[in-house]
Amino acid sequence: MPFDRLIEKIAEMKNPTVVGLDPKLDYVPEYIKAEAFEKHGKTLEAAAEAILTFNKMIIDEIHDVVPAIKPQAAYYEMYGWQGVKTLKETIDYAKSKGMFVITDGKRNDIGATMEAYAAAHLGVTAVDAEEIEAFGADALTVNGYLGTDGISPLLNICKERDKGIFVLVKTSNKSSGELQDRKIEDKTVYAVMGEMCEKWGKDNIGKYGYSAVGAVVGATYPQQLEEMRNQLPHTFFLVPGYGAQGGGAAGIAKAFDKNGLGAIVNSSRAVMCAYKTEGCDEKDFAKAARREVLRMKEDITSHIPEICLK
Amino acid sequence: MPFDRLIEKIAEMKNPTVVGLDPKLDYVPEYIKAEAFEKHGKTLEAAAEAILTFNKMIIDEIHDVVPAIKPQAAYYEMYGWQGVKTLKETIDYAKSKGMFVITDGKRNDIGATMEAYAAAHLGVTAVDAEEIEAFGADALTVNGYLGTDGISPLLNICKERDKGIFVLVKTSNKSSGELQDRKIEDKTVYAVMGEMCEKWGKDNIGKYGYSAVGAVVGATYPQQLEEMRNQLPHTFFLVPGYGAQGGGAAGIAKAFDKNGLGAIVNSSRAVMCAYKTEGCDEKDFAKAARREVLRMKEDITSHIPEICLK
Repeated sequence: MPFDRLIEKIAEMKNPTVVGLDPKLDYVPEYIKAEAFEKHGKTLEAAAEAILTFNKMIIDEIHDVVPAIKPQAAYYEMYGWQGVKTLKETIDYAKSKGMFVITDGKRNDIGATMEAYAAAHLGVTAVDAEEIEAFGADALTVNGYLGTDGISPLLNICKERDKGIFVLVKTSNKSSGELQDRKIEDKTVYAVMGEMCEKWGKDNIGKYGYSAVGAVVGATYPQQLEEMRNQLPHTFFLVPGYGAQGGGAAGIAKAFDKNGLGAIVNSSRAVMCAYKTEGCDEKDFAKAARREVLRMKEDITSHIPEICLK
Repeated sequence: MPFDRLIEKIAEMKNPTVVGLDPKLDYVPEYIKAEAFEKHGKTLEAAAEAILTFNKMIIDEIHDVVPAIKPQAAYYEMYGWQGVKTLKETIDYAKSKGMFVITDGKRNDIGATMEAYAAAHLGVTAVDAEEIEAFGADALTVNGYLGTDGISPLLNICKERDKGIFVLVKTSNKSSGELQDRKIEDKTVYAVMGEMCEKWGKDNIGKYGYSAVGAVVGATYPQQLEEMRNQLPHTFFLVPGYGAQGGGAAGIAKAFDKNGLGAIVNSSRAVMCAYKTEGCDEKDFAKAARREVLRMKEDITSHIPEICLK
């Protein structure tokens, strides 16, 4: 069970957080960019190389204190196929350092097409008799608007290859309520989606009580976090929106169960740009990222029950 | 206005259809694969090269009779960054032949992340002072579950760069109703999403009455196609599910307005695999694709009003 692996890493490090690697080129220190521009000119190749160097140096500094990274696909696609190559190399590097990798792609489609996404990000691709991992993350974020046809192609791969998914339930943005808070009979759309997560996960529940089908529930809506925690006992939460978007640790605590488990909280920009916030030397960016990660760990864990494996 | 451009191509060719390029390696004729394996072994490079050759040969045969292609991102991601490079090269090639390109990615996110997807697929990416097109499609399919925050980052790029989006409204799959048919007060979820499309598009309406914000409405639900056509007068439809999924031309006709405009119908596998269905020599695959495209054009246009620009 993928979330058993994640939960054990969280317990070992006493740290239920994940670092979002969403690296706009603007976040990369000048000296790294200058070196890449020197080699490749001002091209997508240069951007992709600079971002890979940046990511690796952050991973080097944080992999012993943070259980997971969450690269956001959009920031790699933005730099073309060259950027997508950096996504793959970032995933490989993080895994080589023992980290759990959640690709944030919010993918969605049906049937054979969803199978293709599942193969791409969590499975293997057949090239004649060869089976090759295209991206090889441990988990993928997905969007459930299309219903079961969009999710079931993932469930087999989750079982066979020890992988997980996080389905968007209640997102952290301001307008998430336009659809998600609307009522279907007596339930909100997000509660209906949450129920589907429990249903999709019910045949693949791990030893700590959580299934391979997790949910994205935003840190900016503590009341809904609490409601969903109570309603979805087998659903592990990925919680975006801490820090920059306004979600505070006290509210986020509601995402956790009585053993301090059941959720992982993401921070992206605050970690990647810690050196800018601190105002330290840009060459110190990775150490600044580590300091921010440790500060965040302290902040979150001071609000939740002590993490213990049942 | 992107859909003005598309509509004019449709009128010129009298053909409201789009060919989905969703190329699994299994669809590629053996002689093309053999050549690629010879050069690169059984690798993702070989798969990506074989698929590019396949795509280009189909485009060569159909670009004078079909206005648009719709590459599905999943089938390129499945072959790693090498496959994603083939996506870019396919888009470039189709555009060089004058085709309109719809990238089917069903992307979704919020704020800066959605801006990154918009830049990646429809806009340009800044690398220092250089601005580079990462993928450069004419339109992108997107998922609106996150609400306006997920769509508004696209609207500026649509205006500035003459691009369009298609938002999932009522998808063609069997389980699409699990969420999309549920009632919010007196309206279905898909009708609520459709209304949002009209709202998002209202400031960017082209000369044929359609905005830059289109909708995906499946061919497999003719009644809902008709309902949406009546409810969403400014929303251009992308209609998947013709043929293989069971959507017939008579039902699809309901997606069109009285001038035979307002929709474009997709076919993927039936075109790519026409040579298998026909049982002709595999070297004849591109000509078989052309025959299927012309058959489909005949089938669809025989059920709709004669196409005319108002």
